[in-house]
Amino acid sequence: MGYWICNNWYPAIYGDDLPVRGAAARMVCGEAIVLWRGDAGEIWALEDFCPHRYAPLSRGDVVKGNRIRCGYHGLEFDGSGQCVHNPHGRGKIPSSAAPRAYPTLEYGGLIWLWMGNGDPDRSLLPDLSFFLPTSPFQQGGRGWLHMDVPYELVVDNLMDLSHASLLHDGILGNEQSIRAESEAGESESEVFARRWMPNIDPPEYLDLIWMNDGKKIDMWHDITWRPGASLLLDVGATEPGSTKEAGSGVYAQHLVTPVTDTSCMYFFMSARRNSPNHAPEERERIEARLLALRRQAFAEQDAPMIRAQYEAILRKGEYKPSILPGIDKATVLWRRKIERLIRDEDLAEANQATMRSE
Amino acid sequence: MGYWICNNWYPAIYGDDLPVRGAAARMVCGEAIVLWRGDAGEIWALEDFCPHRYAPLSRGDVVKGNRIRCGYHGLEFDGSGQCVHNPHGRGKIPSSAAPRAYPTLEYGGLIWLWMGNGDPDRSLLPDLSFFLPTSPFQQGGRGWLHMDVPYELVVDNLMDLSHASLLHDGILGNEQSIRAESEAGESESEVFARRWMPNIDPPEYLDLIWMNDGKKIDMWHDITWRPGASLLLDVGATEPGSTKEAGSGVYAQHLVTPVTDTSCMYFFMSARRNSPNHAPEERERIEARLLALRRQAFAEQDAPMIRAQYEAILRKGEYKPSILPGIDKATVLWRRKIERLIRDEDLAEANQATMRSE
Amino acid sequence: MGYWICNNWYPAIYGDDLPVRGAAARMVCGEAIVLWRGDAGEIWALEDFCPHRYAPLSRGDVVKGNRIRCGYHGLEFDGSGQCVHNPHGRGKIPSSAAPRAYPTLEYGGLIWLWMGNGDPDRSLLPDLSFFLPTSPFQQGGRGWLHMDVPYELVVDNLMDLSHASLLHDGILGNEQSIRAESEAGESESEVFARRWMPNIDPPEYLDLIWMNDGKKIDMWHDITWRPGASLLLDVGATEPGSTKEAGSGVYAQHLVTPVTDTSCMYFFMSARRNSPNHAPEERERIEARLLALRRQAFAEQDAPMIRAQYEAILRKGEYKPSILPGIDKATVLWRRKIERLIRDEDLAEANQATMRSE
Repeated sequence: MGYWICNNWYPAIYGDDLPVRGAAARMVCGEAIVLWRGDAGEIWALEDFCPHRYAPLSRGDVVKGNRIRCGYHGLEFDGSGQCVHNPHGRGKIPSSAAPRAYPTLEYGGLIWLWMGNGDPDRSLLPDLSFFLPTSPFQQGGRGWLHMDVPYELVVDNLMDLSHASLLHDGILGNEQSIRAESEAGESESEVFARRWMPNIDPPEYLDLIWMNDGKKIDMWHDITWRPGASLLLDVGATEPGSTKEAGSGVYAQHLVTPVTDTSCMYFFMSARRNSPNHAPEERERIEARLLALRRQAFAEQDAPMIRAQYEAILRKGEYKPSILPGIDKATVLWRRKIERLIRDEDLAEANQATMRSE
Repeated sequence: MGYWICNNWYPAIYGDDLPVRGAAARMVCGEAIVLWRGDAGEIWALEDFCPHRYAPLSRGDVVKGNRIRCGYHGLEFDGSGQCVHNPHGRGKIPSSAAPRAYPTLEYGGLIWLWMGNGDPDRSLLPDLSFFLPTSPFQQGGRGWLHMDVPYELVVDNLMDLSHASLLHDGILGNEQSIRAESEAGESESEVFARRWMPNIDPPEYLDLIWMNDGKKIDMWHDITWRPGASLLLDVGATEPGSTKEAGSGVYAQHLVTPVTDTSCMYFFMSARRNSPNHAPEERERIEARLLALRRQAFAEQDAPMIRAQYEAILRKGEYKPSILPGIDKATVLWRRKIERLIRDEDLAEANQATMRSE
Repeated sequence: MGYWICNNWYPAIYGDDLPVRGAAARMVCGEAIVLWRGDAGEIWALEDFCPHRYAPLSRGDVVKGNRIRCGYHGLEFDGSGQCVHNPHGRGKIPSSAAPRAYPTLEYGGLIWLWMGNGDPDRSLLPDLSFFLPTSPFQQGGRGWLHMDVPYELVVDNLMDLSHASLLHDGILGNEQSIRAESEAGESESEVFARRWMPNIDPPEYLDLIWMNDGKKIDMWHDITWRPGASLLLDVGATEPGSTKEAGSGVYAQHLVTPVTDTSCMYFFMSARRNSPNHAPEERERIEARLLALRRQAFAEQDAPMIRAQYEAILRKGEYKPSILPGIDKATVLWRRKIERLIRDEDLAEANQATMRSE
């Protein structure tokens, strides 16, 4: 573990958490980075150190000209990493190596960093249209948290829909949902898993987003991974024998950014589609309960289990999981694809180096 | 440091701390272990990991058939470590390596694990008859604590009775008790030390278990180590010139289980024999004070001293203690015996391997 | 980083923190040391371990004869490290290696240790006459703190006066003070830096020690390093166009003792000279505010910046600072001198060894 694709976009921080003239420190893909926002909302990101004395630039200030000024001795840098002002003596600019600059963009409420050496490719951003202000869907809460586990274990957990029946028993699955019609596959750029669980008693979360009457439902859990960080989960319920389209569901976007090889940031947002009409008080009660169930499932069930799994892996000194037929296909496909993409990237880098040296 | 005998019993948890259908995680001799108890009180212990995704089984549930079910995906294991149920798909049992199973038994209020590869030998259990419900002695409090020091330093401390005169001055010894008639020796399976301190002013603990009148006593401290984890301490007082049998004393059983090579669990229980009759209120006051003194001696005197000693050893990067004539004999005998027993065990293992390969 | 001169004096503790018959543990230059004071005020320092069982002697007691007694088994040591009493058995003194003894002296309110193998040389002590009871200057507060950074980074920070204009903006410098006439140089045994900042608006600290009227001042910051641990800072203000002698200032003595190669102790004391007369209440207010500003500058500005700098150095795995013309000269001179002095010391030690083996 501890490998990731570099030539891709990773979310580093919610845009609202970086105010005008604000600076923030984040570690992404093993690199300490300062992000800052100028007067017109522009965003820059540099390696978080001043080459003079290695003071982190994030301890400085954003100053006019959209520059960041080191808080220790006042050197100023522009968004390209170039030192553009030395307040001391005759103001000679030191010729030392500039801090690395990272391409940035803001999309879907998040600030994204391009972590590779290749040209930033906007088409690699995940499609967050369900979660934009223009979306017809009802937007749910957003959040993020830091997790002290390798990002791969969080992706494993999400690609593996079967655990909902056991670990999230009563919330997102139950004993009946174990008998799912399941499917997993891949395209050039994605890996997906789908479970269709017909005619089951509704787990609480699904009952709440559907009829809230405890009657049987057809339930689905679909997830799609797309590099670098995106997992889109589609969870929903419909009348037994009916179609997804006639049902109601929640799109839950998960974004997993590697921090170090043993930790990651986990961003999440959700949107409900086609939710039934309820009286306002009832609706409020339902929303509050949905939020509480999401928190419980993640904070009390997934997060401690993944951390415990990671500690067991550290104790064993290796990770050779057994493969269970059916339920583990998507995880295996995902692991195979991410490893191939990383090797492809290594090869492209090696070819690049060869061309330069020819 | 960091070596122990494997082919022996080590206490892992008090039986009362493992209720019916309860599971608990403990680390013993460097191995993470889940213990659980079935409906009829039976106890099993497995390596604490599920071979599917390495989730610790201790995060799961005890289910019917006396099985433990993994909390992540629901695989069920019996007490031998065999996976006996897969709830997913067609229920195929994965052929992967089963978690290691440990022989267990319950004795003296404790649950014991056999940590070696050899056949479990019940005759190696220490004799806890002083502490059984059938004992004629008055039972004292029980407890345990986790210590962040190698188990050897705790055994050194207990085998070395002379420190009571200094470190436990006023409680278990005093300046007069330094002039002890002392003796140490060994048998095939035990190492012992004995101190006889005639006609001294009584340290408080001894005064309390004897006449509680501050008058002179003959005092003794005797200790016997027996592998793997057992140290039985016999502390008592009698009228000057009289015999042990005519006196009163406390049997204190200490059990030191290695956790990792730098930490251990320390279990303790006590029983009083031949204690003088006091009025009930007086007796209650005495018991409370005895308990407070035991706590003080251990928690405020021994534990911080042993930890400080360990930190000094870590700083020096070696441990070559000076030997003081007389008082260090039992510690040296103990160290020599434990090292020989470990080498004997290594040799038996090596012979075993040779026989298999012939 | 992590190198220091051994043959020199380092302050270990304020004298007031070591009462009669008191013992204290300190780590100095990577060595764990117990210091204790006898009845007549004498001070001794030994390596903080008892060769019997490695118990730290600092957990013991100071006993008659100005000895320290181990708290575990009662061996007593004199200030030379010789074991002089064994209370057990026939009292045989173990022949094991004695704990190392360190020459000590008390000066300027501090207890100093000589950390080298050479003969202690009193002439190497810094001159603390400004801070003695006999000084004509008004004495300010004293203090010390532990810092989790290599001592070199603290000395770098102090030798580099230019950072006051930025990091301590408004307190000890400001935008106008960047335009300083600055100078740096060295003698055989010292490195100094001086800044003269004429006709500037007064930063608050300087205004308070001068006229407290907000009118322009000529300001100076002068610092002198002297091995092993001493940095004397002279900060003051005078009427524009006038002389230092006519002005008012603060002598601030900084003493930086290496603890380990990644931590240090930082002692500080100050004395005001030629301070203007104010009404008593006004004077009290000024003193309180000066103290608050010193705390803020160090605890909220320097200490977190130096720690952040150190963390960036650890992340980068190297420290190759850029050099800014003018402002970095004193730091470079200091680094060059300390490195040469350490090599000289290594060479002297090597020659010593050669002479012995000839």
